[in-house]
Amino acid sequence: MVVGIIGATGYVGAELLRLLYGHPQVTGFSLASVSFEGEQFEQVYPHFLKKISARLTNAAEVINHSDVVFSSLPAGLSEEYAQLAAEKGIPCIDMSADFRFGDDETLYGAWYGKQYKYPHLHRHAVYGLPELNRELIKTASIIGNPGCYPTGALLALLPAIQSGVVGKGTVIIDSASGITGAGREPLQSYHFPECADSLSPYKVGMHRHYPEITRQCMLAAKKEMTIIFTPHLAPMNRGILSTVYIPLAETWVFPHEKLFPLSQQAHDNLKELHDIYSNFYRNEAFVRVLPTGTIAATNRVRHANYCDISLHLEPSGTTLIVISALDNMVKGAAGQAIQSMNIRFSFEETTALNAVPAYF
Amino acid sequence: MVVGIIGATGYVGAELLRLLYGHPQVTGFSLASVSFEGEQFEQVYPHFLKKISARLTNAAEVINHSDVVFSSLPAGLSEEYAQLAAEKGIPCIDMSADFRFGDDETLYGAWYGKQYKYPHLHRHAVYGLPELNRELIKTASIIGNPGCYPTGALLALLPAIQSGVVGKGTVIIDSASGITGAGREPLQSYHFPECADSLSPYKVGMHRHYPEITRQCMLAAKKEMTIIFTPHLAPMNRGILSTVYIPLAETWVFPHEKLFPLSQQAHDNLKELHDIYSNFYRNEAFVRVLPTGTIAATNRVRHANYCDISLHLEPSGTTLIVISALDNMVKGAAGQAIQSMNIRFSFEETTALNAVPAYF
Amino acid sequence: MVVGIIGATGYVGAELLRLLYGHPQVTGFSLASVSFEGEQFEQVYPHFLKKISARLTNAAEVINHSDVVFSSLPAGLSEEYAQLAAEKGIPCIDMSADFRFGDDETLYGAWYGKQYKYPHLHRHAVYGLPELNRELIKTASIIGNPGCYPTGALLALLPAIQSGVVGKGTVIIDSASGITGAGREPLQSYHFPECADSLSPYKVGMHRHYPEITRQCMLAAKKEMTIIFTPHLAPMNRGILSTVYIPLAETWVFPHEKLFPLSQQAHDNLKELHDIYSNFYRNEAFVRVLPTGTIAATNRVRHANYCDISLHLEPSGTTLIVISALDNMVKGAAGQAIQSMNIRFSFEETTALNAVPAYF
Amino acid sequence: MVVGIIGATGYVGAELLRLLYGHPQVTGFSLASVSFEGEQFEQVYPHFLKKISARLTNAAEVINHSDVVFSSLPAGLSEEYAQLAAEKGIPCIDMSADFRFGDDETLYGAWYGKQYKYPHLHRHAVYGLPELNRELIKTASIIGNPGCYPTGALLALLPAIQSGVVGKGTVIIDSASGITGAGREPLQSYHFPECADSLSPYKVGMHRHYPEITRQCMLAAKKEMTIIFTPHLAPMNRGILSTVYIPLAETWVFPHEKLFPLSQQAHDNLKELHDIYSNFYRNEAFVRVLPTGTIAATNRVRHANYCDISLHLEPSGTTLIVISALDNMVKGAAGQAIQSMNIRFSFEETTALNAVPAYF
Repeated sequence: MVVGIIGATGYVGAELLRLLYGHPQVTGFSLASVSFEGEQFEQVYPHFLKKISARLTNAAEVINHSDVVFSSLPAGLSEEYAQLAAEKGIPCIDMSADFRFGDDETLYGAWYGKQYKYPHLHRHAVYGLPELNRELIKTASIIGNPGCYPTGALLALLPAIQSGVVGKGTVIIDSASGITGAGREPLQSYHFPECADSLSPYKVGMHRHYPEITRQCMLAAKKEMTIIFTPHLAPMNRGILSTVYIPLAETWVFPHEKLFPLSQQAHDNLKELHDIYSNFYRNEAFVRVLPTGTIAATNRVRHANYCDISLHLEPSGTTLIVISALDNMVKGAAGQAIQSMNIRFSFEETTALNAVPAYF
Repeated sequence: MVVGIIGATGYVGAELLRLLYGHPQVTGFSLASVSFEGEQFEQVYPHFLKKISARLTNAAEVINHSDVVFSSLPAGLSEEYAQLAAEKGIPCIDMSADFRFGDDETLYGAWYGKQYKYPHLHRHAVYGLPELNRELIKTASIIGNPGCYPTGALLALLPAIQSGVVGKGTVIIDSASGITGAGREPLQSYHFPECADSLSPYKVGMHRHYPEITRQCMLAAKKEMTIIFTPHLAPMNRGILSTVYIPLAETWVFPHEKLFPLSQQAHDNLKELHDIYSNFYRNEAFVRVLPTGTIAATNRVRHANYCDISLHLEPSGTTLIVISALDNMVKGAAGQAIQSMNIRFSFEETTALNAVPAYF
Repeated sequence: MVVGIIGATGYVGAELLRLLYGHPQVTGFSLASVSFEGEQFEQVYPHFLKKISARLTNAAEVINHSDVVFSSLPAGLSEEYAQLAAEKGIPCIDMSADFRFGDDETLYGAWYGKQYKYPHLHRHAVYGLPELNRELIKTASIIGNPGCYPTGALLALLPAIQSGVVGKGTVIIDSASGITGAGREPLQSYHFPECADSLSPYKVGMHRHYPEITRQCMLAAKKEMTIIFTPHLAPMNRGILSTVYIPLAETWVFPHEKLFPLSQQAHDNLKELHDIYSNFYRNEAFVRVLPTGTIAATNRVRHANYCDISLHLEPSGTTLIVISALDNMVKGAAGQAIQSMNIRFSFEETTALNAVPAYF
Repeated sequence: MVVGIIGATGYVGAELLRLLYGHPQVTGFSLASVSFEGEQFEQVYPHFLKKISARLTNAAEVINHSDVVFSSLPAGLSEEYAQLAAEKGIPCIDMSADFRFGDDETLYGAWYGKQYKYPHLHRHAVYGLPELNRELIKTASIIGNPGCYPTGALLALLPAIQSGVVGKGTVIIDSASGITGAGREPLQSYHFPECADSLSPYKVGMHRHYPEITRQCMLAAKKEMTIIFTPHLAPMNRGILSTVYIPLAETWVFPHEKLFPLSQQAHDNLKELHDIYSNFYRNEAFVRVLPTGTIAATNRVRHANYCDISLHLEPSGTTLIVISALDNMVKGAAGQAIQSMNIRFSFEETTALNAVPAYF
């Protein structure tokens, strides 16, 4: 099978290639780049020397030569290529936000400042979170690969939503990302001396992953939910850590505990909640609900396709804290897209995604 | 004036010396260290060569030779020295948690596993947050210097609490700290390869700064409050960033905004809230309420005594997000203690604390 | 084939497992740890959850159950286990320095302060640098896996030595390592705040890899050589960069060039030298002689088994600068050992070592 | 005294302001920026809020309003302003390379691709290394502030050169710099994910500081010298570490020592060399020749104007290794320029440069 990548020289494109390199069903690559058309891919990224040698072409050629196409472009540019892929009859896995909003063009338009050009494509596009939509992915022609933050947030929230753990009140998702999440372009904010050794929130109340998260949560909850999402930039290459505060439904609330340590009731509740999460993900290869006492951390999933989840209760008795950690370039982008590709083509779902995390 | 430091070879001790070195009223230092007694301070920390040359002695000698004493020891060890200082009649500024809980021995005991040995000392100890207790500090004999996290959390919360902005619901303080906050001892968690390039929460629901924060908030609010505090370890040397989610009182709530951008009402509310905060801190030298649009970040306060604060509203309309950034070793520890010393001795409050932050 | 690892909970042990996890000929692991005997490996390293579940036993059990044993212990502790393995008749790959010095016990003893207990073992031990000793490795019973610095230094030097490029004068090897090279034990020097954002040499003129490097160089040169080696600690997790200054033999020297840029003669010389190196490594899977103009860097080999080499001439005309970059945990330790294992067992040499470097 | 800064929004400009903020003789600033003319300086760098509030103007205005002017521009742009300053009769301290080459226009031209426009200015320009040219600086009208690498290299080399320690052979300067050295512009090489957690040489044999170093060395030696200089980029914000290999003059050479540890003769030689260096810098406020056994490291000079130097001998007996560490933005740029300003205006030389290094 020949895999096509449009936008191959962006970080997500390069990560797709890093992971797909070992995929036994992939026999070749066809790569497009607007910035480097005509050059060799391994000149742009010399760490691929002895691994991949490929001339960079353009999108049309890529679609023409491929059996599946990954479109890894900035928002608003994928529709054209998804349409071409559809015409040719090959699946398109889009790494941008363009196909994450289904037929809710109003929501997409308000946050991305674009309009749908091919609305019919969106009606059939599947939101590519395997843990949520595995069955739909199996036959999808267009897969909108989820955002990095939404993946971590949704995997932390879905079991609580679907099991009625979420009470009234506001769900708060406090997330931090490594700097690869900003992509390859060298902007001032990602200049080493401006972000090294520092932590800062950004786009507070304005990040485009907010409507993606809320839409999926409410679809799962089948009702309105109040959600806040705050992204931060952390001085590291990779990883997204989300600390998710879920107001507990009344049956789960326990009395405020002023003194340390937590009561037996809290521990019992935590065990039950842990069972709910463990059970929810019992058949999932890439979600690890950590044993109680182990806290999710980004280095434990580095370079791997896992999303680690840990559960915590705290003295106020009002809130479940769920922490999720993933690698923004793998489970948050390229790895998840390959997982969808595997599902779509009936390959073993873990193919090419079996690496042990590089903890150090 | 001779300044005494007990525990001079810990990170907080060394930071006190870094800052006090340029203090015009300080004529000498008397330094104690259990681990390095008899050695030269500048052998332990050779970056002080040509700056400070001092033989390390013990606590009794230090108290004997000093006009003010900073006790920078692990929790539970300061009382003895505070008592000695009190007997000699010199002020003691304690960097540990031992004198942060006033007469609430139950709370202190439950979280720190210790009992008060000299209860009378605690009755007169002042919680050394100058923005809150400046008048009390002026005459205090014992000052319990606030914790690093509590300083950032309280400075973010106090204006909202005192002006009635805080509504029903849970206040969430999501904080991350640089690794100097863990002190000088080389434990596994702070071994470079285990924490570099990674982000992780720790002691979720169990951190000892939680009771300190809640106690001060409720004292300020003069009522019960529901508060959650989650600390994270960030891969950087210094800095604490706190993202504080404050449920808005009903008069401040605005309609949920599904579409981007925020409405005029939200902007108007934000301006009013910004005025409240700016006004609250209008006479403070070390709190900067940033202009709207500038977000607090730890590198903008690096090595300086500032606490930067930025205010944000977001689409749900339910919550004020206050972000505070400080340097955990300066405003979060040594700088704040010197600020208190300056107040206590009627020096200019900013003496020795005037450095421009080292942004890069 | 069952792989045994003695010292499995050290960083090298864990890295062996990360890489061997995907090895198709490996059917199981037998793991020993003095510090954690009786515990589960995945409790010590939770990033292995869902990957490896194994109870940690002791060295004797490991040797008993394995078909090959990796001994990953501090210097001076491996002989006993190598002897046991020899008695059982299985190969032992030793990650320490104990079997790197052949019958030169004097040299080993002077630098390591130990004596050989089983001298006969050393006579047959092979220095496990595949690019140098592939044929010997094929039948070795004991393989002394090279040090991380020596691997980078030797791969940079061997082509020059064996082709007569090295002139009179001193070869200088200026190297820097990431902090995983120091191992898992949390010593003061590797405490995050003491080494983050800083660069420092260490053990100048005293590092134990110095005799290992010089011995191998002189064996290859079949004469005395004057060599200097200076290691530095760099604020990063992984990677060794060696900048090697080789005094050129007279035929290669070109006139000093005061003005910029280099002359045609220099460029011609560089091309010839590049050909020598490329030719030397033309059949090697894991050494990449980079195209002229591309400079070796540690992130281009991160987490992979490559050693990248770039060649440079400079205005003085006296010296060839060879830069080598490798991942100290992979080609500098675990990866190279697995490469030797593959050779020893007639597996494809690149098995389990095929990953694309994780550039970002 | 009003200080003018042309190029105030570059990193060097901002660092000049950070340091000069506390200078008692400085009463005001006049700041120019091409990129941000008309804007407020503290909007470009909000960490200066509450410290400096100044409208950015242009070079002509700055010269007009100032008593001394720092020109902090890319190479080739300073001459015009130096001429204007000369016409007005105020000293100009140039942070670029434009005035570092005296009347050697050929050398400057070959490496910088520019020609002198005002040759007379260069004849009187002083190379602003106070430890070398203090007397000349006292009356200079134009001071060419040394490059960051040359400062570290020269301070490591000058005592050896001037005391006849340097023998025949090649001096090798192997240096690494933090990334602030590259300035504020966000180029691809300094994009966080491309340089974090990695080490790489750059411009091998081609760096423009090479001719600056060699010229000063040969002026000091009063003869030709063979010198190699290799810069590296290290994943840290600040600091330059130079490991300098000096071939020993014959009287200093000692027999090659194959076995560990070094002989008494080596130790005696080292002590003598240490005395030479200590004596050379005995009156210098900002050079610290570290006690034997302490190795120079960049974190021990962070944010301070020190250059730390340590001396080492090694087994080959041929070479003195001198390691120097400085902060590239302070002693390597802004701090050194202020030191020159202090000398030029007969202020105490350490004014505004007294900070204790920020070790952590």
